[in-house]
Amino acid sequence: MELDEICRPVSEDLTEVEVRLKAAGEVDSPGLSELLDYGLKGGGKRIRPILVLLSGRLFDGSSDHLMPMALAVELTHLATLVHDDTIDNSVVRWGRPTINTLWGSEQAVLLGDYLFARGGELTASTGNIRVIKLLSKTLMIITGGEVAQARSAFNLEQTREHYFNRISGKTASLFVLATESGAALAGAPEESIQILQEYGNNLGIAFQIVDDILDFISSEEEMGKPVGSDLTQGTLTLPGMLLLEQYPEDNPIKKLFQERGGWEYITRAIDLVRNSPIIDQCFDIATRYHNRACRRLDQLPDNEFRQSLYGLADFIITRRK
Amino acid sequence: MELDEICRPVSEDLTEVEVRLKAAGEVDSPGLSELLDYGLKGGGKRIRPILVLLSGRLFDGSSDHLMPMALAVELTHLATLVHDDTIDNSVVRWGRPTINTLWGSEQAVLLGDYLFARGGELTASTGNIRVIKLLSKTLMIITGGEVAQARSAFNLEQTREHYFNRISGKTASLFVLATESGAALAGAPEESIQILQEYGNNLGIAFQIVDDILDFISSEEEMGKPVGSDLTQGTLTLPGMLLLEQYPEDNPIKKLFQERGGWEYITRAIDLVRNSPIIDQCFDIATRYHNRACRRLDQLPDNEFRQSLYGLADFIITRRK
Repeated sequence: MELDEICRPVSEDLTEVEVRLKAAGEVDSPGLSELLDYGLKGGGKRIRPILVLLSGRLFDGSSDHLMPMALAVELTHLATLVHDDTIDNSVVRWGRPTINTLWGSEQAVLLGDYLFARGGELTASTGNIRVIKLLSKTLMIITGGEVAQARSAFNLEQTREHYFNRISGKTASLFVLATESGAALAGAPEESIQILQEYGNNLGIAFQIVDDILDFISSEEEMGKPVGSDLTQGTLTLPGMLLLEQYPEDNPIKKLFQERGGWEYITRAIDLVRNSPIIDQCFDIATRYHNRACRRLDQLPDNEFRQSLYGLADFIITRRK
Repeated sequence: MELDEICRPVSEDLTEVEVRLKAAGEVDSPGLSELLDYGLKGGGKRIRPILVLLSGRLFDGSSDHLMPMALAVELTHLATLVHDDTIDNSVVRWGRPTINTLWGSEQAVLLGDYLFARGGELTASTGNIRVIKLLSKTLMIITGGEVAQARSAFNLEQTREHYFNRISGKTASLFVLATESGAALAGAPEESIQILQEYGNNLGIAFQIVDDILDFISSEEEMGKPVGSDLTQGTLTLPGMLLLEQYPEDNPIKKLFQERGGWEYITRAIDLVRNSPIIDQCFDIATRYHNRACRRLDQLPDNEFRQSLYGLADFIITRRK
């Protein structure tokens, strides 16, 4: 299933999301407006708004409630990207210069703060205390987790448990925010909300594993950012972990982390991973999370939105960019 | 009135605020915990929690509601300081190294994000949609305003209107959050909440004017940060504006801003301001806002908390650090 087809049941809502994202950039301050305009039209697949909309529509939730939340989740996501790029000194995202590259890290920090605030405002506008609380909790998990990640940079003593905790906090928590809030705003039964939490969490983990694989096997052209950026930042992801486990001798990641740099080690690590069974092994693990995500979906109402949740899960582990 | 005496009616609550701030630093992640521990015991006068507590107690509000909000407002304030220091590359605050100096700007950005999130979570825990919305709005005003401020750095074409808009967004908005949320959580009548909004707004402006004066006339020892930091950042504040108006010829700020630097110009500007009527003129303007702040306080219940609101206003314009 192509992403377009998956989105068809919520395509009108998604058009509205784009319109409102554009409108969110029209503020009274010329400086801020310029930053927002650039920051909001960047790209990205809008997976998180799609999750809010599908999870809510599945239970006949109304646009009035779901739309602000879909926007809030996307703005929150964009805020974390803007801060991430600033922290990592990333130069390119979505095939174009990052905010920090064009306007400096000061403006990028402030833009991120503004986007967090705007996400909070939109969430508050739902009037639903549960989702408001969930947004704050999620942000605490994400930012708390990122402190841990930054501190574990260039550290070889990381287990898979560390890795799964990290990506669960960094990525899956926002997926859970999306699915849980969509369902909660639609007034879904608690049992169903739980199924969608599970779906969001496992889908988020699968999504991040694939992201981490793509950082090894994709091209800058396809990803819109340089290959190997995780290793450049000293971030150890699943493919790198498997490489360390399976090739303990003369391992380029070991050298990279010990010497805290060296482009030739990154190239060699990428090369080794590509020409080994590691990629398949990583996709197998991602597929396991995909299956867990979908395991209880059959207990939800059987409609086109549920079909799209299955489709989205498939898309997430088969995508190549 | 000394600050201690002003705080006496809410002193037990303030002790509890300190205990809970300390507890907020005890999290499961060692890295984050270290940052929080340092960030939360920094210093500061806790003016904003005092405002929440006085405004709420005035209407017999309960600790259960006011305490999380008092903490939320302080954490939000601390978050903005951590990000400000990072953006400005400030080295010292409260007489000790800043977070960005000790842990680098990456960790500082993340700590600020975490504190914003924690502030949001505490606000959400009040269950009061009005104050939750107000928090997000306030953050949008503050961060939106800071983008504008950053863009107006080293710009000589700024009017007093710009200045008052800027400090109203940057400082007074958080004071309004404190007073309005305190009163609203205590179930105060709308008319009274309005009076406290006015109080917060005008008090915030007076507070910031005095802050801007102190940046010219105080000492590093008293302030806990270098004198002249606003000029160093290219930020034009009220004393500087008056200096430009009153000494248009051979003005050191003009040269500083045109050449974008020069410590000797800062020293000369400070010297000129100190030995001119400008400081008195600025205090007069601050006093005008002090008076506006207090103008309608007599319509509020006559009790010790109201007395402290008067006392706090006096303290804010007579303080010398």
